[in-house]
Amino acid sequence: MHLIYLNIEKLLPGGIKMKLSEIDHNLAVQSTLDIKGLKYRNALQEPFAIYGLYRAGESGQYMRLPAEAAEKVSPGVLSLSTHTAGGRVRFRTDSDYVAVKVRLRDAHWMPHMPLTGSHGLDLYVYDGMQDLYQGSFIPPVEHPESYESVVRFPDARMREITIHMPLYSGIAELFIGVDENAQLEPGRKYRDIKPVLYYGSSITQGGCASRPGNHYPAAIAREINADFLCLGFSGNARGEKEMTEYLAGIDASVFVCDYDHNMPDSKTLEETHSKVYSTYRAAHPKTPVIFVSRPDIRLYEQEDILRRDVVYQTYRNALKDGDRNVYFIDGYQLFAGNRRDDCTLDGTHPNDLGFFRMAEVIGEMVRRCLAGNS
Amino acid sequence: MHLIYLNIEKLLPGGIKMKLSEIDHNLAVQSTLDIKGLKYRNALQEPFAIYGLYRAGESGQYMRLPAEAAEKVSPGVLSLSTHTAGGRVRFRTDSDYVAVKVRLRDAHWMPHMPLTGSHGLDLYVYDGMQDLYQGSFIPPVEHPESYESVVRFPDARMREITIHMPLYSGIAELFIGVDENAQLEPGRKYRDIKPVLYYGSSITQGGCASRPGNHYPAAIAREINADFLCLGFSGNARGEKEMTEYLAGIDASVFVCDYDHNMPDSKTLEETHSKVYSTYRAAHPKTPVIFVSRPDIRLYEQEDILRRDVVYQTYRNALKDGDRNVYFIDGYQLFAGNRRDDCTLDGTHPNDLGFFRMAEVIGEMVRRCLAGNS
Repeated sequence: MHLIYLNIEKLLPGGIKMKLSEIDHNLAVQSTLDIKGLKYRNALQEPFAIYGLYRAGESGQYMRLPAEAAEKVSPGVLSLSTHTAGGRVRFRTDSDYVAVKVRLRDAHWMPHMPLTGSHGLDLYVYDGMQDLYQGSFIPPVEHPESYESVVRFPDARMREITIHMPLYSGIAELFIGVDENAQLEPGRKYRDIKPVLYYGSSITQGGCASRPGNHYPAAIAREINADFLCLGFSGNARGEKEMTEYLAGIDASVFVCDYDHNMPDSKTLEETHSKVYSTYRAAHPKTPVIFVSRPDIRLYEQEDILRRDVVYQTYRNALKDGDRNVYFIDGYQLFAGNRRDDCTLDGTHPNDLGFFRMAEVIGEMVRRCLAGNS
Repeated sequence: MHLIYLNIEKLLPGGIKMKLSEIDHNLAVQSTLDIKGLKYRNALQEPFAIYGLYRAGESGQYMRLPAEAAEKVSPGVLSLSTHTAGGRVRFRTDSDYVAVKVRLRDAHWMPHMPLTGSHGLDLYVYDGMQDLYQGSFIPPVEHPESYESVVRFPDARMREITIHMPLYSGIAELFIGVDENAQLEPGRKYRDIKPVLYYGSSITQGGCASRPGNHYPAAIAREINADFLCLGFSGNARGEKEMTEYLAGIDASVFVCDYDHNMPDSKTLEETHSKVYSTYRAAHPKTPVIFVSRPDIRLYEQEDILRRDVVYQTYRNALKDGDRNVYFIDGYQLFAGNRRDDCTLDGTHPNDLGFFRMAEVIGEMVRRCLAGNS
């Protein structure tokens, strides 16, 4: 796709909410942290590499899909396209701390998701085998839309860093700070395959993980060392024709179609679900597609069972048509294990226990797909 | 203990923050919920039974320990004594919904804990084998200090209900609403043993569970069908002489001494830790005591290892003195398993994955103690 990078601010309902300042890279970014020698750099510049967003370095905007594509889908998707769910920054440094200075597009409170998940960032360090959680950049309750925070390490050796961006908020500006004398280099790359693509609703966007690194696609990415693109749209995954076509334009290693919740009923789900698949399949004849039904299925509700049947039917029809690269995960199994009902905090949205189990189940299937196709 | 029930409002710093209204039980409690036939009753009245609080029915106050005892310990403990961590209401009804109308003592935002955990309540239903999560009473972000909310059931058969109270907030008034024509009766009792006693810091108080039912003592209580008393005091578990004596006054089936974090260093921990044990043991020669060190131990920090040694030493000394009812859990093992570093959201406080694992490990030990002693 060849796109001009429209300024998302001009497209959002209500016009420009927050002026995106022109960043003068020659000016030092001010810090209120009391750290001598702290030097900030814009995360959009090298040696930082951004993952999970749409060409952030080129467009200068933190978007999950281009504004002109999102605008065609729905106002909801346009607005949520700025949320940085799945967005990451990677680099390596021998600084004994990493600071961030972030300005978000807005601050909004949710009763069932802490700011650490919705507006916070967290940091992982590669230990030679896997990326391990090291600390969180926690938004202050007084002004979660704009803050500085630091994660410190016990010493100053070279580390491979991954920072996850907020799940339910958009980034206007992000600066990453290390000691002015520290080395700062391009970070570790994921293995050389296309990203794993996730499409779905609020759960797929990360509601309600306690922090971004515990969202299930992020956890799977760490387990399999593969990049991903998280197209979860809270309340707005409706399999629109325009979204279906946009998805079909994405070259992925695996397509996890975790799309169910946001259609009003099983009938409207049926009208769109198979088209999401067939459109994607037409563009990508061999890419594995994993269909996932919703985890919060009520087994006593006929309508919930019908919805699962819709998802299953897309899978069965594909198999019948000779497609050998389709897979099905019964959402009810996502929370399997002791205390399965404790996997959500409101009957729908997974907490970190629920997301852990989703990562285990879906991750196993993604790994299986990659083993056969990468 | 014979105590006059002092009004906590008179003791709190800053005086009376919020007037506790006189409740006229003859007046119907107003509801803004659009539910025909909804009738509220005060949770302090029969047939409701309150667990995990200090004689709430008699005192008319939702307190974890009496104000005059809390006042002697510290201003922090006095303030936190109003937080209802571990508080529960039990009853049975054949209403096809349960509503709550709650007025909290105050509203405060934490960046790393959602309102569903700090200010919310959740509801469990006994299925004949165990209590299962059914839904949450979610505080609205606009006014989390005072709200109504309803959890609905698929039908109107008799159900055994347990409602958990907020972990990081105090209840001024709580009304429980069911259909005016529904049966409402005393709920199921726990098995006939003394409560399990937990003493500790913010983690023990429930920071940062996504909702009260996922806090580890609540989860253990469900697994073993035993009542409990949660004396976790965020930032204020310092093993003070007065707290030590108060703990010794509690007749428990098991004493889980999960107290480590809030002492400034290993030396001050050492000065108090063994006294918490010896004072308790003098009053209760046979009650099993489980010592737990902190889960967020940094294995490279000498000071963290010294702290664990203090906890271990209390245990070793007790054994040496012939005490056969002491147990030790290395906190590092509490998060054991895949992705152990993902068990907290800030390096210290467990998320629901961390609390799940704590409940598994500590619960196994509590069950073992009860099997040998109940």
